[in-house]
Amino acid sequence: MDSFAERLAAGVRRTKTPTLVGLDPRFESLPEPLTAGLLKTNPIEVASAFESFCKGVIDVVAPLVSVVKPQAAFFEQVGVPGMAALAGTISYAREKGLLVILDGKRNDIGSTAAAYADAYLGPPESSAWGADALTVSPYLGEDSLTPFVEIAEQRGAGIFVLVKTSNPGGGMFQDIEDGEGAVYQHVARQVESLNATSVGASGYGSVGAVVGATYPEQLSELREVMPHAWFLVPGYGAQGGTAADVAGAFDANGLGAVVNNSRGIIFAHAKAPYRERFDALNWQSAVEAATLDMIASLRAETPAGQLV
Amino acid sequence: MDSFAERLAAGVRRTKTPTLVGLDPRFESLPEPLTAGLLKTNPIEVASAFESFCKGVIDVVAPLVSVVKPQAAFFEQVGVPGMAALAGTISYAREKGLLVILDGKRNDIGSTAAAYADAYLGPPESSAWGADALTVSPYLGEDSLTPFVEIAEQRGAGIFVLVKTSNPGGGMFQDIEDGEGAVYQHVARQVESLNATSVGASGYGSVGAVVGATYPEQLSELREVMPHAWFLVPGYGAQGGTAADVAGAFDANGLGAVVNNSRGIIFAHAKAPYRERFDALNWQSAVEAATLDMIASLRAETPAGQLV
Repeated sequence: MDSFAERLAAGVRRTKTPTLVGLDPRFESLPEPLTAGLLKTNPIEVASAFESFCKGVIDVVAPLVSVVKPQAAFFEQVGVPGMAALAGTISYAREKGLLVILDGKRNDIGSTAAAYADAYLGPPESSAWGADALTVSPYLGEDSLTPFVEIAEQRGAGIFVLVKTSNPGGGMFQDIEDGEGAVYQHVARQVESLNATSVGASGYGSVGAVVGATYPEQLSELREVMPHAWFLVPGYGAQGGTAADVAGAFDANGLGAVVNNSRGIIFAHAKAPYRERFDALNWQSAVEAATLDMIASLRAETPAGQLV
Repeated sequence: MDSFAERLAAGVRRTKTPTLVGLDPRFESLPEPLTAGLLKTNPIEVASAFESFCKGVIDVVAPLVSVVKPQAAFFEQVGVPGMAALAGTISYAREKGLLVILDGKRNDIGSTAAAYADAYLGPPESSAWGADALTVSPYLGEDSLTPFVEIAEQRGAGIFVLVKTSNPGGGMFQDIEDGEGAVYQHVARQVESLNATSVGASGYGSVGAVVGATYPEQLSELREVMPHAWFLVPGYGAQGGTAADVAGAFDANGLGAVVNNSRGIIFAHAKAPYRERFDALNWQSAVEAATLDMIASLRAETPAGQLV
C-alpha cells in the first residue's frame, strides 16, 4: 500500500481541495428529522442517530473531498454503543473511498503507545478501528511518538502530532520558551526529524502536525520548520479562522495542508447563511452547499487554487 | 456524594495502603488457562479473556487495596468488543467497592474536552463509562483542563494531569525551561491552582498529578509545589522505581499519593520470585502475593507506614 502521505496527496489532487470534513456528532445539534422521538438518555438510540448522521454527511461529501475526521470524544460520550457507531462510521467512510483521520489525541509511554498505534492505524486487516491516521499528543516526548511512527510506516498510515493548537489557552504551555525556541517549535523540529525515513514522491512523510488556523503567523513559520509534514489545520469557521488565515499552511503547489471544518459544514442547516436557504429536512443540501463554499474560499484565497 | 479526593483518602486509610493496581491486559501475557484454545485474531474471544482476567484480578485485590487503574489503550486495541470489556471491568470494580482511575490520557479543546469529561467522569447514573477519575494530558493548556475540573467537581470525580512522566524520553518537552522553571513545573503550578475550589477535609482537591517514580527528586520537589494534589505515581516495579524512590510523593501522614503497579502484580505468575512459587493455574495467588509484598514495601520504606 502507498504511504498515508502519498494517498493524502493523491486525494487532495484528485478532488482539487484540501477541505477536511470533521465528523463531530452532538445530539443537540443533529437535524431534527434524525432525532425526532429519540431519547437523549438512551445510548443505543443516540449512537444510532450519530451513525446515521455521519453516514448521511459522508454520502454528501464523498464526491467532493478526500478526507474526513471523526472526533472520538463525541462517540466515547455515548459509551459502548457510541464506539460501535464510530467503528461503523470509519468503515462506511472507507467504503466510500475517503481517507479517515481519527481525532483521538491519544498517547502514552512505550508499549502502551504501541497499543494505541496498533489499535487505530492501518486498514481493517491490520487494526481494530481501521483509521488511516490518528492525532497524537506530544507531551510524553520522543519515545512516546516513535511507536506510532513505526507502526504508521509499516501500515501505510499516518499521525498528526499536536504542535500549535487553535484554542485561546493553547499557548499556556506550548509557548514556554527557552534559548532554542518555544515548546511548540521544539515539537515541530521533532516532527520534522521523525519524517526523515518516510518522505515520498509528494515531498511529505508519515508524521503530520496539528497547527491551528487561529495562529496565521505561526502557520507560515511552522511550514518552514516542517517542510515534510502534512498539516492538519483546525480552527477554520466556527473558531474564527478564515481561508486567508490558513494560506501559510500550504506549499507553493497547494499541497501540504488539510483544513478542517466540523460544525460549519455538518450543522450548516442551523447556521447562517444556510438556515435561510435550507430547512432541517434538507440538511444534507446545506452540508453540500457549505462544503462547496469552503472549497471555493480555499481555492480563491490560498495556494490550494493551484490544484485546479 | 463525597469528592473523589475524600473518597480516595478514605479508601487509602481503610486499606492502610496507597497501592494502586493497574489493569493492563495483554493477550500474550495472560495466564495460560485464560487463553487456552482462544484465537488472538478473534476480538470477541480476546475481549472476553481480558474481562475475565481483569475480574479475576479484581476479586483478589478488592479486599487489599482501594483503587484500580484500567489502561484504556489495551481495551481499545481490541475494538468494540474491547470497549465492552472495559465497561464490564469498570462496572465490576465499582461493584466490589473499588475506586476506578481510567488511564486514558485524554484531552482536547473546549467543548470536546467537556465531552470527554462527560463520557468518563462520575457514577454510571451520570457518565457513560462510570470512572471515578481519568488521566488527562495538559498540552492544550488551561482552557482544556477547566471543563474536566468543572464536571469532576459536579460529579464527585477527579482527574490526574500528566506532569512528569516516568518514561526515559519524558523530559524532551517536559524539561524545557524558561525563567520561571521547566514546563512540568508550569503544569504543576497550574494543577495546584485548579485545586483552589475543591480542597476538602483531607487537604486534597479534585485535580491530581501524574509524577513518575523514576524521578525521585522531582517527586519531593513537586510535592511542595502541589500540596493539594493527589499524586498518581507510575513507574514502580517493571519500570525500575522502588518503594524508597516514591517516598517523597507522600505527605507526613502517608496520604497524598497512590503508587501504581501493573505488570508486576497482574502478571506476577510469570515473574521472579513468584513464578518459582506459583504455576499459571494459581495465577491469582501470585497476584495476591505480589500485592501483599508491594503493600509491605510501601509500609516499610515510605510515609505510608503511618497509615497502619
